[in-house]
Amino acid sequence: MGKLYVVGIGPGGIEHMSLRAKEVVEKSDIIVGYNKYIDMIKSIVKDKEIYSNGMKGEEERCREALKLSKEKNVALISTGDSGIYGMAGLILELRGNEEVEIIPGITASSAAASILGAPLMHDNCNISLSDLMTDYEDIKKRVKLAAEGDFIISLYNPKSKGRPHYLKEAIEIIKEFRGENTPVGVVKNALREGQEYWITTLKDFIDEEVNMFSIVIIGNSKSFIKDGFFITPRGYKLEK
Amino acid sequence: MGKLYVVGIGPGGIEHMSLRAKEVVEKSDIIVGYNKYIDMIKSIVKDKEIYSNGMKGEEERCREALKLSKEKNVALISTGDSGIYGMAGLILELRGNEEVEIIPGITASSAAASILGAPLMHDNCNISLSDLMTDYEDIKKRVKLAAEGDFIISLYNPKSKGRPHYLKEAIEIIKEFRGENTPVGVVKNALREGQEYWITTLKDFIDEEVNMFSIVIIGNSKSFIKDGFFITPRGYKLEK
Repeated sequence: MGKLYVVGIGPGGIEHMSLRAKEVVEKSDIIVGYNKYIDMIKSIVKDKEIYSNGMKGEEERCREALKLSKEKNVALISTGDSGIYGMAGLILELRGNEEVEIIPGITASSAAASILGAPLMHDNCNISLSDLMTDYEDIKKRVKLAAEGDFIISLYNPKSKGRPHYLKEAIEIIKEFRGENTPVGVVKNALREGQEYWITTLKDFIDEEVNMFSIVIIGNSKSFIKDGFFITPRGYKLEK
Repeated sequence: MGKLYVVGIGPGGIEHMSLRAKEVVEKSDIIVGYNKYIDMIKSIVKDKEIYSNGMKGEEERCREALKLSKEKNVALISTGDSGIYGMAGLILELRGNEEVEIIPGITASSAAASILGAPLMHDNCNISLSDLMTDYEDIKKRVKLAAEGDFIISLYNPKSKGRPHYLKEAIEIIKEFRGENTPVGVVKNALREGQEYWITTLKDFIDEEVNMFSIVIIGNSKSFIKDGFFITPRGYKLEK
């Protein structure tokens, strides 16, 4: 009888994995995951049995991981936190009597924030702009209510070829509630190979360079830019 | 010339730190932090110079960390992610010309979620119920808009002696928008010594056992409980 570990490896690469996540991957017999993610940690999985498939094979991958775990220890890996837009939910939905443990990781908005400065210091939300599994009307409603509530907003999956205008529309909705100088940060490939980032404002934001591997963070009404850092104050009254 | 690392150690203990966070702490000359947090990683800091003070000494602690980093390498540690309700913002607000790097960690809502199952699989938000630095009216407005937007809601600092009724009031606001069977999970001391958790529903929720070291997670309209796990579906149409 084996066990299935659903592991968030963090932004990518070994160094931002938790010690527990690394240990669990190293002691597993079989590694299951999307090829690109397995590649990111290949130095610790190279001698192992691997079950890998392409994007959009999520259900098949999860069923296979559960089946394999009846006999052996299996690590199903995803980037970021396995519990935020990751594989933890699907595994628990499909689970029969297999033993499952969820190992959390650093989610993409935390990784992106650490590059930009400290944008997420107050109440904040994560919204995915992907409409593969959510109605676009519901997504827009969420963006509007988050903007109205003055949440710092992290947009996951901000742009893809199939829906090139969603990000622009989300920014327009947010502009109805926030000043034009509100900071906006974009991070591509946060804390992994190919990292790029820039900080701008709602007024000057252009979506051209944003892609699926980006996170877009929009500040709240108190966020500001200082010395190149995007900062949201926690609210301390400083003794200056 | 030294450098200041602002390090999120994750939920507590060494094993949920990232490899990078551990490495940075190990190579720093001086460790700065609240005594309780330093205690959680004492096995890797015991031979180091330590500057520690109590709760509510945040500004003094940050000023000291910046000053010390002019000469030596300093790690300023906090639990969770240093960038979410942590010390990253205050450091960057107070920073002059010191070199600063933010090292992200696993935030408390991710840690709590991994214990409960997979509650955060869709759009979600973090709200702190602490009114030390935020007006209570603003907090209630955010809870209402998050509930209206069908966000999964993670409540940080859900209860303290000075504001015993806020959590109850937040739950009442959420009930206006969600069904009475919506799952609610409470995790105390997630992934560290003293961990306890329970899963209930909006209807049956009682706040008695909740304290400052707890995270309370309220599901969205599609969340459910299965085999003791709190699950929010991502939206996959499963083949069954």
